[in-house]
Amino acid sequence: MLHILFLFSLILTSTHVLAQDFCVANLDGVLTPSGYACKPESKVASDDFVFSGLGMPGNTSNIILAAVSPAFSAQYPAVNGLSISAARLDLAPGGVIPMHTHPAATELLYVVHGRITAGFISSSNAVYVKTLTRGDIMVFPQGLLHFQISSSKRPSLAIVTFNSPLPGLQILDFALFANDLPSSLVEKTTFLDDAQVKKLKGVLGGTG
Amino acid sequence: MLHILFLFSLILTSTHVLAQDFCVANLDGVLTPSGYACKPESKVASDDFVFSGLGMPGNTSNIILAAVSPAFSAQYPAVNGLSISAARLDLAPGGVIPMHTHPAATELLYVVHGRITAGFISSSNAVYVKTLTRGDIMVFPQGLLHFQISSSKRPSLAIVTFNSPLPGLQILDFALFANDLPSSLVEKTTFLDDAQVKKLKGVLGGTG
Amino acid sequence: MLHILFLFSLILTSTHVLAQDFCVANLDGVLTPSGYACKPESKVASDDFVFSGLGMPGNTSNIILAAVSPAFSAQYPAVNGLSISAARLDLAPGGVIPMHTHPAATELLYVVHGRITAGFISSSNAVYVKTLTRGDIMVFPQGLLHFQISSSKRPSLAIVTFNSPLPGLQILDFALFANDLPSSLVEKTTFLDDAQVKKLKGVLGGTG
Amino acid sequence: MLHILFLFSLILTSTHVLAQDFCVANLDGVLTPSGYACKPESKVASDDFVFSGLGMPGNTSNIILAAVSPAFSAQYPAVNGLSISAARLDLAPGGVIPMHTHPAATELLYVVHGRITAGFISSSNAVYVKTLTRGDIMVFPQGLLHFQISSSKRPSLAIVTFNSPLPGLQILDFALFANDLPSSLVEKTTFLDDAQVKKLKGVLGGTG
Amino acid sequence: MLHILFLFSLILTSTHVLAQDFCVANLDGVLTPSGYACKPESKVASDDFVFSGLGMPGNTSNIILAAVSPAFSAQYPAVNGLSISAARLDLAPGGVIPMHTHPAATELLYVVHGRITAGFISSSNAVYVKTLTRGDIMVFPQGLLHFQISSSKRPSLAIVTFNSPLPGLQILDFALFANDLPSSLVEKTTFLDDAQVKKLKGVLGGTG
Amino acid sequence: MLHILFLFSLILTSTHVLAQDFCVANLDGVLTPSGYACKPESKVASDDFVFSGLGMPGNTSNIILAAVSPAFSAQYPAVNGLSISAARLDLAPGGVIPMHTHPAATELLYVVHGRITAGFISSSNAVYVKTLTRGDIMVFPQGLLHFQISSSKRPSLAIVTFNSPLPGLQILDFALFANDLPSSLVEKTTFLDDAQVKKLKGVLGGTG
Repeated sequence: MLHILFLFSLILTSTHVLAQDFCVANLDGVLTPSGYACKPESKVASDDFVFSGLGMPGNTSNIILAAVSPAFSAQYPAVNGLSISAARLDLAPGGVIPMHTHPAATELLYVVHGRITAGFISSSNAVYVKTLTRGDIMVFPQGLLHFQISSSKRPSLAIVTFNSPLPGLQILDFALFANDLPSSLVEKTTFLDDAQVKKLKGVLGGTG
Repeated sequence: MLHILFLFSLILTSTHVLAQDFCVANLDGVLTPSGYACKPESKVASDDFVFSGLGMPGNTSNIILAAVSPAFSAQYPAVNGLSISAARLDLAPGGVIPMHTHPAATELLYVVHGRITAGFISSSNAVYVKTLTRGDIMVFPQGLLHFQISSSKRPSLAIVTFNSPLPGLQILDFALFANDLPSSLVEKTTFLDDAQVKKLKGVLGGTG
Repeated sequence: MLHILFLFSLILTSTHVLAQDFCVANLDGVLTPSGYACKPESKVASDDFVFSGLGMPGNTSNIILAAVSPAFSAQYPAVNGLSISAARLDLAPGGVIPMHTHPAATELLYVVHGRITAGFISSSNAVYVKTLTRGDIMVFPQGLLHFQISSSKRPSLAIVTFNSPLPGLQILDFALFANDLPSSLVEKTTFLDDAQVKKLKGVLGGTG
Repeated sequence: MLHILFLFSLILTSTHVLAQDFCVANLDGVLTPSGYACKPESKVASDDFVFSGLGMPGNTSNIILAAVSPAFSAQYPAVNGLSISAARLDLAPGGVIPMHTHPAATELLYVVHGRITAGFISSSNAVYVKTLTRGDIMVFPQGLLHFQISSSKRPSLAIVTFNSPLPGLQILDFALFANDLPSSLVEKTTFLDDAQVKKLKGVLGGTG
Repeated sequence: MLHILFLFSLILTSTHVLAQDFCVANLDGVLTPSGYACKPESKVASDDFVFSGLGMPGNTSNIILAAVSPAFSAQYPAVNGLSISAARLDLAPGGVIPMHTHPAATELLYVVHGRITAGFISSSNAVYVKTLTRGDIMVFPQGLLHFQISSSKRPSLAIVTFNSPLPGLQILDFALFANDLPSSLVEKTTFLDDAQVKKLKGVLGGTG
Repeated sequence: MLHILFLFSLILTSTHVLAQDFCVANLDGVLTPSGYACKPESKVASDDFVFSGLGMPGNTSNIILAAVSPAFSAQYPAVNGLSISAARLDLAPGGVIPMHTHPAATELLYVVHGRITAGFISSSNAVYVKTLTRGDIMVFPQGLLHFQISSSKRPSLAIVTFNSPLPGLQILDFALFANDLPSSLVEKTTFLDDAQVKKLKGVLGGTG
């Protein structure tokens, strides 16, 4: 008796690729506007699709008492080309994820445990802020300034996901004070006082 | 002294809308290919962006010992137009999220607690399966068959997110056996035996 | 007298590329999330845009009495990057294109000759099925399970097109039974009986 | 004994819409940049997805000995929002589908029967032209001038599909000569002679 | 003699819409994720596609000695759905367009006259800044903080365009200081001193 | 005292790329459907984002008394992948930018100085034409035939921008008369007289 298997194999007249279900990044390959070149499908295994790096708490022993652990294309090559990625936010009591934007992605936050006050500011300068507890989700539309701060006396944990494999993270203070953008330009374009700018440039290592 | 406020107000020569940061769905409004009509921005409040429905366990006292609680546009209107949404998966011990697809979205799963064996099958019929523990993430590329089953003696909880506000959920058994698709068509197109089809149509309420 | 040609050549101050009308795939080149690298335009000829592979009947002397002949990027490199592709369906009397999905594409079917019963199942488990005759078209929205079967005593021919150059083809039986996905997982996630699963794994060459 | 059906119904904690598989156009509804408003899913039936209008030959008893029969959103509401559509081309012997573009879509042509010489011109003014026979396909990249003419002594039939539900059709002669664009502007911008412009405006009913 | 016009009219078997070349906004119509509902094509005229509002200098007699005049969907309904829009920047000597982002658009600036120092900061906190003169263009990638200041003793004029009809404009100082975002939250999330925050909230009319 | 800088550096647990703000083209690199490969970010400088090539008048001493100077990916690599680009139009008195399309982009024109009559023709063959003066903008929807002619006794200057980094430019006369498309095909598909076609093929260097 002939197996269906043998017969089914006649259906497709070509042995070439029929789909591009995924494109696990070859991080040593070429980078294009659509993302990294794909790892050959023959070398892709189950482990490529699983990432355990968000399972461990980030180190919050720092000035902001918080940590961001990304699972973007560079850490988690499976999301390359797939319009999705994630990150872990750890907030110790008093912890703060400072005011920031993701230039090219909308964010959805899920509170795993703890209590987090989160907010964003719209293009109309309206403020949307709320204290979230375990199980709550909140969405931060693309490109808008937003923040998360601990509202708990215990550690808080949130998982955030993005609709981009490389959402970016532009932290306001880093953008303004941690580089060589001249103080005079910072002051002119933000109306901050010279002393304020120099103080923050000092602690953040900015020059100029 | 004149306030900057007054002077700044001169900058913009129009008082009309400058952006469309978000489009919170008016579920009673018109539905278009891009989603629901927007609720007027003046009626949007912080509460619109927060959803607490994923905070409560779904009821797993059912035959699959599992529950899916969606936060799609219809439940969480803030994601309308934003290319993101979420759902909660509860799996009791022995629980199963049956083989299914999301016709128009990639899924990212995060294990909040417990132990879940998850897998998907590619267009090349390759199987990618792995047992995930707390903190692991796994990605399921768009449109492919996938499943999640409990691998724990305790309840497991996962949060999944999608890169679409209306990702859909086509559960294989429901698609085949819970409607009026004639048994003869099911059998011809799936090679399942008549007895098998009739048995599952029976329990799932399918006719024909 | 100077020719307009000479003068017109002054219009454009650059001799560089002004457009990317097409990107005929270099199948030996790099594969990215947006498709294959482009063949140099200087090597592209009329023949690249024409494909004759759909002109010949597929071999339907097989268990399903049907054949699918694709014209996707891999067979027809001109569609690389163009969001379109095609395939030919041959159905002998009694032929069946088994239940399947295209994970990332909508399909439009045109009946060239013969009589075909086609259907799809929505996310709401609604069944849309119809017997089509010569000249009819039917659309199968992205990612949904669908099938085509012969309703004629003569050979039937359909041409299908997709809004993707690599639409994929996930045949349900192959996904479930033609690989190493363990029978126990298939059974748990599909509610099929063990005997049924083992029978189909047997004929389709699946293991586990 | 409780039916699985009953128990399964507990899985989903909401009865709202979970997907937007399709959006069959309500042609009397609002038109937006993404297409027409959707017909309620409860009123959608199998017939909506099938269109028989391409089954009948177009009337080629006209000056071009050819006919184009569209199946775009307006004729075939099921493709609204689905990035696909089709049309039928009938060419009598000597028939011509005049030089035209589809402003927002790539076209894939399939020769059902007959013999058709088809071609397009790239942004680099390269000409890609070929005589196609039964079963051949040819792709015409988005927005480029192209044409099809009969190369047979018998009627030819082609089915074309597009990656847009409303691809448009800008026929060069109609655009230049069948409206009130002043002859002087036509002449200045095309370098055609006044007599030529006036002649074609005359036969095509253009004014100015 | 029959006119070609009459005969050509037979080509198209339908009188329905064949394309959606544009969707001039009906600002009183429904707003959807893809933009405003379309004005009926029969009411669209040449004037809809032309906007003269950027022809007049904005009023720079204000604290920033600058003005932004938008031509977005709300001011210029023709760009609705078209992924493009524009604005006029007037800078008096000493003028400043303060640090801002466009949450959902890339910007291209063209200097009409004068001398402007412009810059943006990347997600990697790199600063890209340059003094531009008449005829220079500069691109500001989507979502990144950027600014423009006068470097001339005379008025400067720039035209900026965006790849979105509603690019948004989030001015940093307005987002932080011109609303009811509590000072304590501003301070915690920006590390600015209390005095600095209160001072700017004072002049910008912010509360809390 | 520890610097915040040091402590902040702990926030991000990875030193890999977090965003893809831009992808300045490596014109010697691979070309893909999404554009050119990216220049390494470490080699990108402020100068990459600025282009001065539009600052100089094009040479209008030619038969059309006009010039087009592009700033597309090939001339201005910074726009690669960014969905925006620009060009400069110079029109001497009597100058004409002949009838043309951009196959894959919408155009927005801004009149820097002078007086320009511009128009486009829709898929419905409606003509939208207007004489524009300094400061006016006009939009030309994707893929439609359009033109610009001088309406001034002095030089006119316009800057046009596109929602694509490689918009293309298909000039009607070049497409029809400046290549080897046989005269017989031009005549059949455009209804132009043989003498007219041969005359323009002659001056434009076309053959066949």
